[in-house]
Amino acid sequence: MANKPLYNEIVKIAQEAKTAARSLALVDTKAKNAVLRKMAETLLANKATLIRENAKDLKAGRAGGLSKALLDRLMLDEKRVEGMAKCLMDTLAIKDPVGQVMETIKRPNGLVIKKVRTPIGVIGIIYEARPNVTSDCVGLCIKSGNAVILKGGKEAYYSNKAIYELLRRALRGTGIPTGAIQFVASTDREAVKILLQMDRYIDMIVPRGGEGLIRFVAGHTRIPVVKHYKGVCHTYVDKDADLNMARAICYNAKVQRPGVCNAMETMLVHKDCARRFLPVMIHDLQNAGVEVRGCPVTRRIVNGGVKAAQAQDWSEEYLDLILAVKVVNGTQEAIDHINTYGSQHSDAIVTENQKAADQFFKSVDSACLYVNASTRFTDGFEFGFGAEVGISTDKLHVRGPMALEGLTTYKYEIYGKGQIRQ
Amino acid sequence: MANKPLYNEIVKIAQEAKTAARSLALVDTKAKNAVLRKMAETLLANKATLIRENAKDLKAGRAGGLSKALLDRLMLDEKRVEGMAKCLMDTLAIKDPVGQVMETIKRPNGLVIKKVRTPIGVIGIIYEARPNVTSDCVGLCIKSGNAVILKGGKEAYYSNKAIYELLRRALRGTGIPTGAIQFVASTDREAVKILLQMDRYIDMIVPRGGEGLIRFVAGHTRIPVVKHYKGVCHTYVDKDADLNMARAICYNAKVQRPGVCNAMETMLVHKDCARRFLPVMIHDLQNAGVEVRGCPVTRRIVNGGVKAAQAQDWSEEYLDLILAVKVVNGTQEAIDHINTYGSQHSDAIVTENQKAADQFFKSVDSACLYVNASTRFTDGFEFGFGAEVGISTDKLHVRGPMALEGLTTYKYEIYGKGQIRQ
Repeated sequence: MANKPLYNEIVKIAQEAKTAARSLALVDTKAKNAVLRKMAETLLANKATLIRENAKDLKAGRAGGLSKALLDRLMLDEKRVEGMAKCLMDTLAIKDPVGQVMETIKRPNGLVIKKVRTPIGVIGIIYEARPNVTSDCVGLCIKSGNAVILKGGKEAYYSNKAIYELLRRALRGTGIPTGAIQFVASTDREAVKILLQMDRYIDMIVPRGGEGLIRFVAGHTRIPVVKHYKGVCHTYVDKDADLNMARAICYNAKVQRPGVCNAMETMLVHKDCARRFLPVMIHDLQNAGVEVRGCPVTRRIVNGGVKAAQAQDWSEEYLDLILAVKVVNGTQEAIDHINTYGSQHSDAIVTENQKAADQFFKSVDSACLYVNASTRFTDGFEFGFGAEVGISTDKLHVRGPMALEGLTTYKYEIYGKGQIRQ
Repeated sequence: MANKPLYNEIVKIAQEAKTAARSLALVDTKAKNAVLRKMAETLLANKATLIRENAKDLKAGRAGGLSKALLDRLMLDEKRVEGMAKCLMDTLAIKDPVGQVMETIKRPNGLVIKKVRTPIGVIGIIYEARPNVTSDCVGLCIKSGNAVILKGGKEAYYSNKAIYELLRRALRGTGIPTGAIQFVASTDREAVKILLQMDRYIDMIVPRGGEGLIRFVAGHTRIPVVKHYKGVCHTYVDKDADLNMARAICYNAKVQRPGVCNAMETMLVHKDCARRFLPVMIHDLQNAGVEVRGCPVTRRIVNGGVKAAQAQDWSEEYLDLILAVKVVNGTQEAIDHINTYGSQHSDAIVTENQKAADQFFKSVDSACLYVNASTRFTDGFEFGFGAEVGISTDKLHVRGPMALEGLTTYKYEIYGKGQIRQ
């Protein structure tokens, strides 16, 4: 081990989290909610501190040449701190999943088997710039009865540390041990590697950030990882679409916030409505500053300003004002395209045709499928989950926005009267 | 790649399975049930063939010096073939999870979000001796809409191949493509390694067998693995236990079938009933041929024939007529012992005291917890799941006996009327 003190520090953090998780699992909803409220109040009472600490990150970010977009994501002002507090209160308001009886099975031999939701244990969150991730994830983990280990990016170091310290302070004098919230202070990449070896103590890792970070995490651990690598989201405009609706949905999915995983990256258009739809749509998009990369048919229909799409465009996550556009022969071709090039994240069909929607829903193998709505709604808050620890494109355990339920497992409790097996 | 032809063969198998999975996902319950019935009938109509092929395995096993216990697990007779057919019919009778709406969320903006169960895709089963695993797993995978790749141990090669061929033949002329059942014929360990690299095509791996096999599988793949390494199951006899009941439960949990993962390996006894309970209990066990390894207190109470337990006994999975016995000071010590040395599989408390049972259920971190019943009931059939593909001690995705539901994931289907994100 290259860095023995760092290793020892992280082992200690992981052990403390494990110990805290055992008692946190026994805390009732009322006590957890009281703590969430105290956390929200603590953030609101310390806005000035948070903004001051955040200013250190912003200064370092500017000096280090962070892009404007990243600096904006990093920035905390009064409104954003209020947003963080509100998110804790939203999580407070969501029903506690722990203890919920998911199913009761009565067997002919008299055994009663209850499937009961329980916390998972210790959750590791490894994330990049946005400081609100710190408080969102802490709120969700505490409410679901899990200890949490935070490892944020160095860009937000002072902000994350300040949020962590306030939230941890809010645990003092409550029934929840302060060890339930842990913070890895080292900004060394080595720290991530060590954390990923703590499979004895950590039950699940959620990486949030760019594809590079997520592949690094998934490739360096035996701890189960819940993740999405990227979001190559599609909107398919069917021949039976309401084209005005399609125009608004596609515009929203691409333009409203292009830098996020649920933004549209490829638009598929049925050949029968392409001539009516594409010129207007592409005009709107170009007015919003979108660079359009089209298939040959698209370029024949809209002859001005559409670049030729290359093979790699179909699987590209631009995270920017760029859009790939393809004209397809029908719903099945759209489905095949999405299943081939997509990322199983969020895909939409715009159609008034129930059969086309059914076929799309049955056959597209993605976490979230939309008919007549923008893919931008794939989000824990928009789903009514309060917040999210991340979005999963994995098929096991949890899929789509991951919040309280995704932070639980279950146990079978079996009630007998002396039954033995024959 | 050391063995290119083998690699190519396994890629072909995995690709065929993936293609078949896409169409199998669309097959309705009626058609899947018809296929399960046909499979059961095919096995029954070909008992002689199965027994003949099985004889080849038995002969090779005897020549290779397989233990009596292993030869017994390997052996097929008329009754066991009938058991395999019955298991397919039991699976047929279970409700199809696919398409089930798990939850409907209505959002203030009018979006309707349905969480719908779907098949996972392609399941790889890597297993050792017992041939019935082949038909049990095929039945569960087909019923849950998943393609399956079978990789059995070489000891059961002829038996597994014969079962596979009959089941695959039963798919002909049905709506389910024959590619949905795949069989890796090579008995080379290299074949397992190659299979584990097929993360592009295989969605989940379930290894069944000894701890060595399971650790090998988990350590050589990026495909999600659902597993249990071992079953170190406990029964805790509380001071408020009905001691006659405890005697029957402990005897059953240890003796009825010692070679399986849900058999008891350690018995914990409250100090207040140890003097009344242990002499009778240990006498029963010794009469059944059980070797008892006790803590010092146990050995003081029962002075004859109890060996001294060593430190490693507390975490040992004997899979044999051996039992570790420890006297504890109370429920909390029993809980701590189980959480420290157990395998999070199945643990029981025998007590008439509701508070002790509650404490045990809340604090023991295992997949299946029993009050007043034998741990031997941890089993898909006994839980009413028809059969099982395995038992999971993982916390994510599925815990305990894994059957149809554990073979599904879900997708969110979102119904809009043109909603865009603000």
